Amino acid sequence: MPGGSPQTLRPFLWRARQLYADTEVVSRTHEGIVRYDYDGYGDRVAQLANALEAAGYGNGERIATFCWNHHRHFETYFGVPGMGAQPHTINPLLPDKHVQYIVENAADRTVFVDQSLLPKLEGAVADDPDPFETVERYVVMGDSVPETDLETVAYESFIGDQPTTYDWPELAEDRPAGLCYTSGTTGQPKGVEYTQQMLWSHTMGIQSPQGIPLADDDVVMPVVPMFHVNAWGLPFSATAGGAKHVYPGPKPSPEDLAGLIEDEGVTVTAGVPTVWLGLMEYVEEHDVDLSSLDRLVVGGSAAPEAMIRFFDDRGVELVHAWGMTETAPVGAVSHVKHGLADTDYDTRLEKRRKQGLVVPGLEFRVVDDEGEAVPHDGEAFGELHVRGPWVTTEYFARPEATEAEFADGYLKTGDVVTVDPDGYIDIVDRAKDVIKSGGEWISSQELENELLGHDAVAEAAVIGVPHERWQERPLALVVPSGAEEDSLSDTLREYIRQNYPNWWVPDNVVTVEEIPKTATGKFDKKVLRDEYADESLVEGRVPDEAAPE
Amino acid sequence: MPGGSPQTLRPFLWRARQLYADTEVVSRTHEGIVRYDYDGYGDRVAQLANALEAAGYGNGERIATFCWNHHRHFETYFGVPGMGAQPHTINPLLPDKHVQYIVENAADRTVFVDQSLLPKLEGAVADDPDPFETVERYVVMGDSVPETDLETVAYESFIGDQPTTYDWPELAEDRPAGLCYTSGTTGQPKGVEYTQQMLWSHTMGIQSPQGIPLADDDVVMPVVPMFHVNAWGLPFSATAGGAKHVYPGPKPSPEDLAGLIEDEGVTVTAGVPTVWLGLMEYVEEHDVDLSSLDRLVVGGSAAPEAMIRFFDDRGVELVHAWGMTETAPVGAVSHVKHGLADTDYDTRLEKRRKQGLVVPGLEFRVVDDEGEAVPHDGEAFGELHVRGPWVTTEYFARPEATEAEFADGYLKTGDVVTVDPDGYIDIVDRAKDVIKSGGEWISSQELENELLGHDAVAEAAVIGVPHERWQERPLALVVPSGAEEDSLSDTLREYIRQNYPNWWVPDNVVTVEEIPKTATGKFDKKVLRDEYADESLVEGRVPDEAAPE
Repeated sequence: MPGGSPQTLRPFLWRARQLYADTEVVSRTHEGIVRYDYDGYGDRVAQLANALEAAGYGNGERIATFCWNHHRHFETYFGVPGMGAQPHTINPLLPDKHVQYIVENAADRTVFVDQSLLPKLEGAVADDPDPFETVERYVVMGDSVPETDLETVAYESFIGDQPTTYDWPELAEDRPAGLCYTSGTTGQPKGVEYTQQMLWSHTMGIQSPQGIPLADDDVVMPVVPMFHVNAWGLPFSATAGGAKHVYPGPKPSPEDLAGLIEDEGVTVTAGVPTVWLGLMEYVEEHDVDLSSLDRLVVGGSAAPEAMIRFFDDRGVELVHAWGMTETAPVGAVSHVKHGLADTDYDTRLEKRRKQGLVVPGLEFRVVDDEGEAVPHDGEAFGELHVRGPWVTTEYFARPEATEAEFADGYLKTGDVVTVDPDGYIDIVDRAKDVIKSGGEWISSQELENELLGHDAVAEAAVIGVPHERWQERPLALVVPSGAEEDSLSDTLREYIRQNYPNWWVPDNVVTVEEIPKTATGKFDKKVLRDEYADESLVEGRVPDEAAPE
Repeated sequence: MPGGSPQTLRPFLWRARQLYADTEVVSRTHEGIVRYDYDGYGDRVAQLANALEAAGYGNGERIATFCWNHHRHFETYFGVPGMGAQPHTINPLLPDKHVQYIVENAADRTVFVDQSLLPKLEGAVADDPDPFETVERYVVMGDSVPETDLETVAYESFIGDQPTTYDWPELAEDRPAGLCYTSGTTGQPKGVEYTQQMLWSHTMGIQSPQGIPLADDDVVMPVVPMFHVNAWGLPFSATAGGAKHVYPGPKPSPEDLAGLIEDEGVTVTAGVPTVWLGLMEYVEEHDVDLSSLDRLVVGGSAAPEAMIRFFDDRGVELVHAWGMTETAPVGAVSHVKHGLADTDYDTRLEKRRKQGLVVPGLEFRVVDDEGEAVPHDGEAFGELHVRGPWVTTEYFARPEATEAEFADGYLKTGDVVTVDPDGYIDIVDRAKDVIKSGGEWISSQELENELLGHDAVAEAAVIGVPHERWQERPLALVVPSGAEEDSLSDTLREYIRQNYPNWWVPDNVVTVEEIPKTATGKFDKKVLRDEYADESLVEGRVPDEAAPE
């Protein structure tokens, strides 16, 4: 059988040491700023691998991390998968019951845990009916261990006496090299395994010009937590590119981030919009030097237009990226195409605020309820299905979820999107939230945004209510910004009618005091749908054309 | 088993059509300039796939091309492997007997051939004792077919009536998707198969910042023939990046190349030094606008320093790349590292003239005769061994060659190199030409370059002559630039001694009228070694220290 040698993470670290021995890894920790180079990093990664081998690992055992972004967490990124165990990042912000489910589902053997997160973990363990029975040891990130009932060892003691060289094995490319759980807003979290090949592929994919390429003159600061899909894969791609790494540590404030950008000369950083809103406020009130910063990558949810303009005004390119746990994660990046480079600013902005252009190496399709492809006209919408070498094809130990969420080799993303003639993908809704009326789809998000544009509205959620004739009809729930008025429902329905066809207009607008939210702060539409599953709420108000003509 | 979908070429063309339907493919042919876009290209590639399927192919049958660089050849690049047959480029410059061997070894079923190359192919067929018995048809690239005894069809008739859509199958990633033979200066040519995965990997590898990244604002002109390792993979990476393609057609003159650069706005071009020497002369004598040109990639053999300076002076970055048929082909690219960006011009030049930095995703080692790694000090040298996802691990149907040229998962490149502390690889000799004296190696290429620096020398070849005590000793053969002189041998030996240790000094310098050369214009050292395998030529002149101290 012809073919090259396996695709693994090994060559990336090997090359960084060969070519960039002196390039730095900088980390903000509870012990202060820690600073070493790829050579020092490589030594410690080898020590970690030796320690894990001495502990009897190396055959796919799952090793969890419960940590923020710092150099020790980064050491596990190459050390654990490189020696043949499987790293597994756990989101410490999850409810205890999710953490308990995840540790049991993954059968973790060791947990690396930050000192600051130890109390949270202790709580989850103590509270567990079957307290973390697969876990053999907890390694606390630091020099010493605080008092605790858990079986702990300090990280520096764990690796300290080990040799600084390690004979990295040649692993098969289908060897699992990562494991991350989706947030699980509905049902239990689902695990996504990343093989060596998937991580190699994702790294190479995002290093291409239309990904998030990192070169040896870049200084990369991932603010996105390392427990969110490997900090979007940036620790791997930064190493492949020979870039300098900056890890901002536990809960960095806007001041911390601004300081690291200035002090370390950060050229590329990445995180969710909330982080950048905080930085924007800080920059407006303080004298911050952003001149080193070249690109700011935004993902997780859409970047507001005002944010794009804010950073443009300061010479920083805001790059919008889309992805999911299941896509390892980057699937699309919103670069301005060459053909659009000469268009006016607003046209470019309109493209840049979308989820973007598919990264080379992946394929997608957008299909309606009947599985038919919808046209790429920027108007028709359907569910986004995606496939490719770094898109998973199954969930970990969850065959029923795999059955439900994959089709014909594609991942059903659950995102409802349009694609414009230039190829830009734009999310208009989540598939489970889209309202299906007379065989056509109505975007709940779009109606919510429209309602928010009205002065009388503070919050708005739109859901589909089951309807005999039309399948579903939209119902709006609004928190008024001022005093309650009797005519608000009619006023807002008329307001919507100005810009949308009759059949999009909600049959009813119900005034509520608050809208229930999930643990991650999103509207809990499942609760809303259960509570308002009453056809009478949308009966008798259906316009003549509750479906398109 | 977790993992993403297979790595194949399909997503690259799919994406280019989705995002860059209007981007052009331009081709210089015997019919004049042909111009269409990715949409038109995609239609024709689908027609080709349908035609091949109608002809009964799609199950790994080998389909050869005997063609220069043009749009129809490019259509075979995606059409043939995409529908499940295996494309096989043949170098039309090879001697007939090599072409005959290759077609028989590959068992080609169809040959696509340029009109201008048909006579050459007819000759090889007619002359074959078993005339191309596996070949069922010859498809002549063009509208019509000249008179010939072969079973031919015109390409445009072959694909003309076929539908412009094709349901591209999902192929396994270990499916062979290419086949190229090494030049075979010693023995018969050896075949290297490229799988879908190897081509995907190579494409992604060279798209990274330290490869030869091509973006959607690039206009790429591969001058390197498409029968030389897929034109160094650029037709694939240009498609992945959404770049415009320019194919310069059969035997482009410097004037043709200059015209295409100016007319099409070429930003990146690639070829062997000989091509650029021709362009340099043309540019010096004519008013050529090189302002669009950003990068000029040189491979195949080393770029002279004067060439690098010439293009630097004109705002064109000369990028030196190293590779082999076995490495698909790009393995190293000579970028200036960030840490060297502020050094003076000569220091950077010294780095840039080397073969360069290994591309991310590959690994190498440099070993001496005993298989021990040599230090990366820029002085010690050994044979370069390389491995990675796009480096082959075997030769096609040649187990004995596979046995000889691979070790521990590494390809033994046959290149003798140094690696400097910055990681730059520098070829000092071919392994088979290096002279082994007293357990140490002497670079024949280095001595040849030194001899060429003497005014009295027009050509110089240095070989190892078997020697009982020292294993081998160097013998120089020189073509004098002027009249023959008796003392030339002593003069030149003294000249060498100025810069080299005694044991490097050739024992003898023999004056010859010409040095025998191979079909590709290189010194035929095999012939020289046979002819001068006489210890008396190096006997009695061995210095006291014919080995290092």
